[in-house]
Amino acid sequence: MKLYNCATAPNPRRVRFFLAEKGITVDMEEVDIIAGDNLKPGYLKINAAGLVPVLQLDDGTNLCEAPAICRYLESQRPLPNLMGANPLETASVEAWDRFAELNGMQAAGEVFRNSFEPLKTRGLPGSTLVDAIPALVERGKTRLAAFYELLERRLGITQYLAADRFTFADITACCVVDVANFLKLPPPAANRNTRRWHDAVSARPAAKA
Amino acid sequence: MKLYNCATAPNPRRVRFFLAEKGITVDMEEVDIIAGDNLKPGYLKINAAGLVPVLQLDDGTNLCEAPAICRYLESQRPLPNLMGANPLETASVEAWDRFAELNGMQAAGEVFRNSFEPLKTRGLPGSTLVDAIPALVERGKTRLAAFYELLERRLGITQYLAADRFTFADITACCVVDVANFLKLPPPAANRNTRRWHDAVSARPAAKA
Repeated sequence: MKLYNCATAPNPRRVRFFLAEKGITVDMEEVDIIAGDNLKPGYLKINAAGLVPVLQLDDGTNLCEAPAICRYLESQRPLPNLMGANPLETASVEAWDRFAELNGMQAAGEVFRNSFEPLKTRGLPGSTLVDAIPALVERGKTRLAAFYELLERRLGITQYLAADRFTFADITACCVVDVANFLKLPPPAANRNTRRWHDAVSARPAAKA
Repeated sequence: MKLYNCATAPNPRRVRFFLAEKGITVDMEEVDIIAGDNLKPGYLKINAAGLVPVLQLDDGTNLCEAPAICRYLESQRPLPNLMGANPLETASVEAWDRFAELNGMQAAGEVFRNSFEPLKTRGLPGSTLVDAIPALVERGKTRLAAFYELLERRLGITQYLAADRFTFADITACCVVDVANFLKLPPPAANRNTRRWHDAVSARPAAKA
């Protein structure tokens, strides 16, 4: 298997983190998003939407979208379980993973894509070319603050995001916080549940993948 | 089971469509988003992010997020299979469902939320209050056009979106097209694969749910 990766992007990191938790090694091919490698005809044949990551199977099948890739990998290597051990837990993992992605990742992405000069004509991930909209930087910060508030509240109820154990939802939320840290928009220092959780997730060896 | 529904919103429709395909009936409670029912304290206890749909199980457990709800329902009522009959097909359904949601549904939502006067202080779904940004109306139209182009191309390769049979990904994409039709932003008339597919999906009795 080969992962079309981008070392600096958060969505490929979700898959690398997941692979490392499973103890699966794959070949990697770097796709430099900033340089526009993901918009070149060769890559658009692999993913027409111009997004990373893609997991290419040995028969040439290209699997797109980080959660779909990870669910497939879990079917091939069920342990340690990261996507849910029963239907209710699976629903919780998917719902909280989506919470982290749609509220957190998209918020951080909105800040980054609309303020980073080299991407000023690429305000969205992938092949749809739209100009940056400066008003989205502030909107992204507002969304990120709301995400942090809900995250803190949730982590006061459960030890990890989807359950009282580590799952894929924690991988996604950790990738959000680390991107936000890079953007100098960390969780509020008073959010002690978030800090406890982020320290625990970040201490996992797979977090370095 | 009870579905917290909003009759006019596309994400609850994904679940109603899915339930009808499965032949499952549930109680419904209407949440009027335009009136702000989803932002009231009672509803925020059910879903802190203020989003519909929510499926409440008989023991009081609240399942959030349409794809997570549908995956749970499939585990309880496996046939007809809509989420994928094997790991590779499951990955394809999830990837193409996400394609429809992140490229299509979010594009149509961007047009609607930033142009509909009664929501001018609620530019995003749910409880994060942000003002409408007029520039996002045009961006949403650009995104929707790009979605239509990729949809048409894909439907020239496969009969349905994720496979050569009807799946959950078609439910989501049909809900996108119908919202876009409501916004008077239909797929281009020249997109014959899309028309063939949309006619077939819309003819299913469950499409009326």
